[in-house]
Amino acid sequence: MNYQAILNQIQGDIQPYLGQGKVADYIPALAGINPSKFGMSIHTIDGITATIGDAQEQFSIQSISKILTLTMAVSLDDTNIWKRVGREPSGSKFNSLIQLELEQGIPRNPFINAGAHVITDLVYSHFDDPKEAILAFTRMVSMNDSISYDYVVAQSERETGNRNLAMGYFMKSFGNIENKVRDVLDVYFHQCSLAMSCTDLSKAFLYLANEGVLPTSEKTIITKKNSDRINALMLTCGMYDSVGDFAYRVGLPSKSGVGGGIVSIVPGEMVIAVWSPGLSESGNSLAGTKALELFVNYTGKTIF
Amino acid sequence: MNYQAILNQIQGDIQPYLGQGKVADYIPALAGINPSKFGMSIHTIDGITATIGDAQEQFSIQSISKILTLTMAVSLDDTNIWKRVGREPSGSKFNSLIQLELEQGIPRNPFINAGAHVITDLVYSHFDDPKEAILAFTRMVSMNDSISYDYVVAQSERETGNRNLAMGYFMKSFGNIENKVRDVLDVYFHQCSLAMSCTDLSKAFLYLANEGVLPTSEKTIITKKNSDRINALMLTCGMYDSVGDFAYRVGLPSKSGVGGGIVSIVPGEMVIAVWSPGLSESGNSLAGTKALELFVNYTGKTIF
Amino acid sequence: MNYQAILNQIQGDIQPYLGQGKVADYIPALAGINPSKFGMSIHTIDGITATIGDAQEQFSIQSISKILTLTMAVSLDDTNIWKRVGREPSGSKFNSLIQLELEQGIPRNPFINAGAHVITDLVYSHFDDPKEAILAFTRMVSMNDSISYDYVVAQSERETGNRNLAMGYFMKSFGNIENKVRDVLDVYFHQCSLAMSCTDLSKAFLYLANEGVLPTSEKTIITKKNSDRINALMLTCGMYDSVGDFAYRVGLPSKSGVGGGIVSIVPGEMVIAVWSPGLSESGNSLAGTKALELFVNYTGKTIF
Amino acid sequence: MNYQAILNQIQGDIQPYLGQGKVADYIPALAGINPSKFGMSIHTIDGITATIGDAQEQFSIQSISKILTLTMAVSLDDTNIWKRVGREPSGSKFNSLIQLELEQGIPRNPFINAGAHVITDLVYSHFDDPKEAILAFTRMVSMNDSISYDYVVAQSERETGNRNLAMGYFMKSFGNIENKVRDVLDVYFHQCSLAMSCTDLSKAFLYLANEGVLPTSEKTIITKKNSDRINALMLTCGMYDSVGDFAYRVGLPSKSGVGGGIVSIVPGEMVIAVWSPGLSESGNSLAGTKALELFVNYTGKTIF
Repeated sequence: MNYQAILNQIQGDIQPYLGQGKVADYIPALAGINPSKFGMSIHTIDGITATIGDAQEQFSIQSISKILTLTMAVSLDDTNIWKRVGREPSGSKFNSLIQLELEQGIPRNPFINAGAHVITDLVYSHFDDPKEAILAFTRMVSMNDSISYDYVVAQSERETGNRNLAMGYFMKSFGNIENKVRDVLDVYFHQCSLAMSCTDLSKAFLYLANEGVLPTSEKTIITKKNSDRINALMLTCGMYDSVGDFAYRVGLPSKSGVGGGIVSIVPGEMVIAVWSPGLSESGNSLAGTKALELFVNYTGKTIF
Repeated sequence: MNYQAILNQIQGDIQPYLGQGKVADYIPALAGINPSKFGMSIHTIDGITATIGDAQEQFSIQSISKILTLTMAVSLDDTNIWKRVGREPSGSKFNSLIQLELEQGIPRNPFINAGAHVITDLVYSHFDDPKEAILAFTRMVSMNDSISYDYVVAQSERETGNRNLAMGYFMKSFGNIENKVRDVLDVYFHQCSLAMSCTDLSKAFLYLANEGVLPTSEKTIITKKNSDRINALMLTCGMYDSVGDFAYRVGLPSKSGVGGGIVSIVPGEMVIAVWSPGLSESGNSLAGTKALELFVNYTGKTIF
Repeated sequence: MNYQAILNQIQGDIQPYLGQGKVADYIPALAGINPSKFGMSIHTIDGITATIGDAQEQFSIQSISKILTLTMAVSLDDTNIWKRVGREPSGSKFNSLIQLELEQGIPRNPFINAGAHVITDLVYSHFDDPKEAILAFTRMVSMNDSISYDYVVAQSERETGNRNLAMGYFMKSFGNIENKVRDVLDVYFHQCSLAMSCTDLSKAFLYLANEGVLPTSEKTIITKKNSDRINALMLTCGMYDSVGDFAYRVGLPSKSGVGGGIVSIVPGEMVIAVWSPGLSESGNSLAGTKALELFVNYTGKTIF
Repeated sequence: MNYQAILNQIQGDIQPYLGQGKVADYIPALAGINPSKFGMSIHTIDGITATIGDAQEQFSIQSISKILTLTMAVSLDDTNIWKRVGREPSGSKFNSLIQLELEQGIPRNPFINAGAHVITDLVYSHFDDPKEAILAFTRMVSMNDSISYDYVVAQSERETGNRNLAMGYFMKSFGNIENKVRDVLDVYFHQCSLAMSCTDLSKAFLYLANEGVLPTSEKTIITKKNSDRINALMLTCGMYDSVGDFAYRVGLPSKSGVGGGIVSIVPGEMVIAVWSPGLSESGNSLAGTKALELFVNYTGKTIF
């Protein structure tokens, strides 16, 4: 297939959707983004690439970073992790404390905020300098040493992060956070602030399309089984409270962030990254979701 | 691949798991089943079949019938249906009323009981004799005119169905059941009582592996898009409250029933049906889930 | 004190509040009431009476009937009753099913609908003709043999009672309803339909102001201890989801109904009954609550 | 009545109950208490006093301090307070976050922990040195300048207070905490650590039995209306999740603490304070509740 032609087609189709939705505005650094931005990038495991629009522009990857820390965590300790966090869809908002109370401080899955805190806490316990470790891992998989944290965003998150603090202390009260809550959240807010482009992202997650092996470096990042499992978790839990709707429309393991990015995996074939800051009510990029739906319609590349 | 050889291998591997778990005992007709039963059947879209064990023996398909009525419903009216039932995982027990109250009588998806009631209600409204229509559809897709309801099971369900009645009247109070609650549940209890074998099931659902077209008769049952969507719903909502765990271990769109049956779709390739009455705590066949996990390990046929 | 003068004063004060609020309209028989109706009646245990406005006019007592059946139930069996229903405020709407699910079919108290169903079920089990028994008890305490059910209201309730049916079947599924759900609810809908006047009500509940003894007939209805307890339950659970606000403003054990009636007990002294059909958001008579607040302000007769 | 004789009688009756229940052990300072301690004290508004047992011994008043700060808050600002905290029983545990989420950060009442945080936050905003102000108020109403904070207890609370921190940050995320969460909780943990005796307590709260006026000093602490209202809140919300059961058994406006203290008001007459460290499952002093029940049985002094 001529992926570049398909992306070009999508760029035309997507125009009416640009600027729709609501840009995340809970911190000033995100609120200032131009809502009409749109970029899309593909990397296949065979080395084919295609890009359109603002695919080279860095943005705040936010919750997409949860795949990075989850990958690190399963490679560090893939047994204990599942005693501290579940693998089921939550059926409720990404930042709800209700389920956490009903289920005694065990978050439903690693992609809701509380679950991501636990994963970051686990990573935290394994490194002297966890922020450095996460950054090194990110640069390694994306083969881009210029990637870094956006300290302005991280600081903003920290200042407005009362609900994340509430979750952290709540889990701590159940004994499910090992380190100091503020220290874990400091790392968490930094990972969310990672500034990456669509091109970075579609390259970085190729190991999830290639049975755990990064085709660019032939390095094994995780086992095939764990790669399959992360894909399964992305499909069932990766898109906030609209995983079902997204699976229904797009049907690819995916993870979104409130910065407007979405990463989708076509197992055995490729990674697609898309970015557009306007969000739907469920917190996923509105034009990004539409672009992925078009991509699947044009290529038939759904897992179903 | 030599599917028969793989099934034979699985039959050996599975022996330690037979008789484990708990047979559904809320009605006498199900409680009396021999817990060591085990059958498995494959139908590929190319006409290859393989079976082992009790694959020809009929059992109560229970919630697997929800795929049959959902298929009928989307072919009858695939727009209004999604105003009355969601497409998201529930994050709670299949028969919980909590979410129904919080979300004003709109069930989370068509595979929890409340959602299935709405689907049956929708089917009910389109036919003079809905029980006859569902039976005719089932016989047609499975190409087996001897399939019928088990009236003893249906009667037992009705006598113990207080929680289903509670759900039905609760949704009726929100205006989300059109017909008489008792009439809709009478049809629902009958569809659950359908007695089918693994062979029947792996043949019947071939249209979900073949873009909506039944390869046995070349008849189009639903559109490709709707076929993809039912697969997506099965993956995200088909295995009660362990969809995430099942996707993590097996990774195929599947639907289970408390009779011990599970149907799994390998899109573009085949349908696998398995039956063993012992249930895990989440209500899915314990040996059946293990058999599917082994099948995926031996064949690599996961969607991830 | 000159209670008649105080009631006259209140009748003047209350004029701006008449017609405010929303008349219960879920059944036609209630929706047709003139919203400006207002009546108030006092009976002291010493035989003093005072009335104003529409105090002689019969209206649908609705949930006030829950005191009648609770009184019957505690006199029939005051030990087992508290295994089947709690004594705590619910913290949620009178017809919520959420708590019922979280607490395994045991309603929080006898004054939410589910709790009242259990009480009616208990009464039902003790009589050949429970409807006749409840009516006889009501006539006895109010010394008015002309009181009867309003069969039009009862029939309307039955036709729109889907949520009550949902609760009944839900508790039945937990084993907490002994008789047939429809039979119990038939009695429940009849007790709610009882047509009584303010005068009837302030006379009927004098036993709750007089340590369990009806001063009019010197008949012991219940023990002093049980009388105290029903007053305590009325104070903590009698006013739907605004018991705290009502205790804060009025401070008397009270029970309201969606027909617009409220009964308040001044222990050791008197019973006050008030009626005005316009309801506040919490489902209590708006002018009735105001009238009681004025009464307490003028007389200082609060229990606090 | 001869109150001393009645207390002496109770001291005999209560022996079998001493040492029953479970001493609060979440902090070492509380866990070390002798579970057989028992004291009881009465102060009437006419100046009569009576004491038994360990009535002079200081203990940690814990949640009883919520009456002190609520009294300060209503005298400082009795309008805005009710926009930030409700007046309804919670129907759930004293430290639940579920309701807080469902009701957008507005706690149900001032006596659950979250509600007490809001009250302390409000007091905090009015004073340069809020800890000093609370201590001064406490000494003033109890006429005992030797009362002070137990800094060991306060420090222990702070170290184990993750759940309180979770609540604080959660409400902060809804905008319902004005000051820094840690600062407010520091004050809160100190007020909970106040060491007072039964005698101190029965003297301190006389204003609630005397229409807002402290009879010892003839000082008006709050208006009669606010005094009635605090009594109403104590009755409907003061005993954790067993207010209904307590009202049923004792029937007096009361507030308990996990230190084993309970304060009960007989409006117009007296205050009773009781202390015994063994707690029932609901967190109230077991022998203390029994002693109050006996007192009401012997004296008939219930509000119902």
